[in-house]
Amino acid sequence: MLKFHPDMIHDAKRSIEPHVLKTPILHSAALSRRCDCQVYLKMECWQTCGCFKLRGITNFLHHRKEAVMETGVVTASSGNHALALAYAATKMKVPRIAIFLPENADPAKIDKIRRQGVDPILAGQTFFETFDMAQAHATKSGATYVHSHADPLVIAGQGTIGLEIMEALPDVDAVIVPVGGGGLISGIAAAIHTGASSVAVIGAEPEASPGAYLSLQKGVPCERIPLKPSVADGLAGGLSPLPFEIVHHLIDRVALAAEEDIVVAMKTFFTEEQLVVEGAASVGLAVLLSRKIKLSAKKVVLVLTGRNVSADRFLSIIASDGECA
Amino acid sequence: MLKFHPDMIHDAKRSIEPHVLKTPILHSAALSRRCDCQVYLKMECWQTCGCFKLRGITNFLHHRKEAVMETGVVTASSGNHALALAYAATKMKVPRIAIFLPENADPAKIDKIRRQGVDPILAGQTFFETFDMAQAHATKSGATYVHSHADPLVIAGQGTIGLEIMEALPDVDAVIVPVGGGGLISGIAAAIHTGASSVAVIGAEPEASPGAYLSLQKGVPCERIPLKPSVADGLAGGLSPLPFEIVHHLIDRVALAAEEDIVVAMKTFFTEEQLVVEGAASVGLAVLLSRKIKLSAKKVVLVLTGRNVSADRFLSIIASDGECA
Repeated sequence: MLKFHPDMIHDAKRSIEPHVLKTPILHSAALSRRCDCQVYLKMECWQTCGCFKLRGITNFLHHRKEAVMETGVVTASSGNHALALAYAATKMKVPRIAIFLPENADPAKIDKIRRQGVDPILAGQTFFETFDMAQAHATKSGATYVHSHADPLVIAGQGTIGLEIMEALPDVDAVIVPVGGGGLISGIAAAIHTGASSVAVIGAEPEASPGAYLSLQKGVPCERIPLKPSVADGLAGGLSPLPFEIVHHLIDRVALAAEEDIVVAMKTFFTEEQLVVEGAASVGLAVLLSRKIKLSAKKVVLVLTGRNVSADRFLSIIASDGECA
Repeated sequence: MLKFHPDMIHDAKRSIEPHVLKTPILHSAALSRRCDCQVYLKMECWQTCGCFKLRGITNFLHHRKEAVMETGVVTASSGNHALALAYAATKMKVPRIAIFLPENADPAKIDKIRRQGVDPILAGQTFFETFDMAQAHATKSGATYVHSHADPLVIAGQGTIGLEIMEALPDVDAVIVPVGGGGLISGIAAAIHTGASSVAVIGAEPEASPGAYLSLQKGVPCERIPLKPSVADGLAGGLSPLPFEIVHHLIDRVALAAEEDIVVAMKTFFTEEQLVVEGAASVGLAVLLSRKIKLSAKKVVLVLTGRNVSADRFLSIIASDGECA
């Protein structure tokens, strides 16, 4: 199997440039005041398909085009990865696109995938069950599995966000990255630490799914951890071995966000900056606002990973007092 | 007085580039389906200060720096222009910044201006009264008046949006621009028609404030027209003589948006694209969705002018059935 190397991120940049949006980095005066540091937002929530995932997928499909056009693709995902793969693979005219979703997947997300012309396969009660069924399908059918995070090409694609941060804000002090499976933070940390190694890369994840926190504490990847429901459902799951290997010595620390703080962060984005972001994209602001992380007067980039939350769910979350909707 | 010439837009581009965001143009599959044409969004709502106004102001302050640093500045505005001027003039350390707002101005907007370090002067019952008082203040004090739209440098700054549209989407068929005083559409139309003259520039304004519609119909600028309250309050006012002179022969047509259609457009941006945009920025989608304008299968750019609407007001608008909140 292909081994990950930070050079692959520069290569990914060239490969994906024509297909993805180079998202801006905005300074937020209002959030800076509230967080007692200079807050910059990497607006990956404005990426095509509403989420950063298109970067890794585009890089994967570009490099594996021949195989993919021969075998088709398969994946398992709770949402954003599935949507972006449906979009990119359809655009590339990949012959067979099999997307496995948990049976209880959000109907709005199922609908969005269908609109890309792909009918998802609903299977499994938990994400891990769904994942195992998708893997079995790949083995049986010979289709190319596109992993949502534990793949060198996918990680290299997500890493282009790190290059863009350093290009736009070379004197950044810290970058706070939401962590689910660890693909995003691996790519970003690898990109940043090939250049300016003094930048602190900080992970943020919900208390309900503390995979990276436990992994760093124990020194081994904790992938299949017990999960609680979370408003940041996009981050459900633990750190896989490949991301762990790449990133465990590059992360400054991992902060855990309480559910009520994630809700407060979503409300704050909405009221202060008129931004609709999903729960998973709000854990960084949650740990800053609640002072789980203190970075007084520092230049801090929050990676806003996505905006894929349905209007109804968003309105019910911001109307709540902190409990998961 | 300086006369407007389209070349000033290219000059403005160089002047403002370091200070304003080059906003992206996004394709919206969801809105394209609903409008039966290819909808692209020029995301000027993500501009610094939440609105396109910073472009014109930055160009003005850049070219008039010497005078402005000597005399200070004064303006009248119902919101966005005031906020952007407070921001840019404070940043430039202009000595005296006098901003006149109507007495009934939105407290959220007053607050935002105060946070820039400028205490606005609340005067006048209507915008026209406020405007006259600000003009009198300029005459008396000798301060430089920064007009929100009837100024060649301001118009040239707004025109940079037109250059960016043509650069990003050279084969665009039509650009729909919200019209208030006419500064934005003058700049954009002048920028577009120096290049590809086959692009249709279409104005959109609320039925409650049909200044450009009446001006084109009568062939003279209708500036002080009777106004009704509108959810698109940022567009209140008629077309001033200078914008009229620049733009009357460059506009394809002006479409009027009903209040309920503006509300539907705001809801649609929110539910389909997770976007919070103000009423004034939604008139373009309103005339497309309601088929006031039919552009089947064409490539259409909607200029999303701003996102400065308070959370409370936004939530009350999208909860309403079409009446102005």
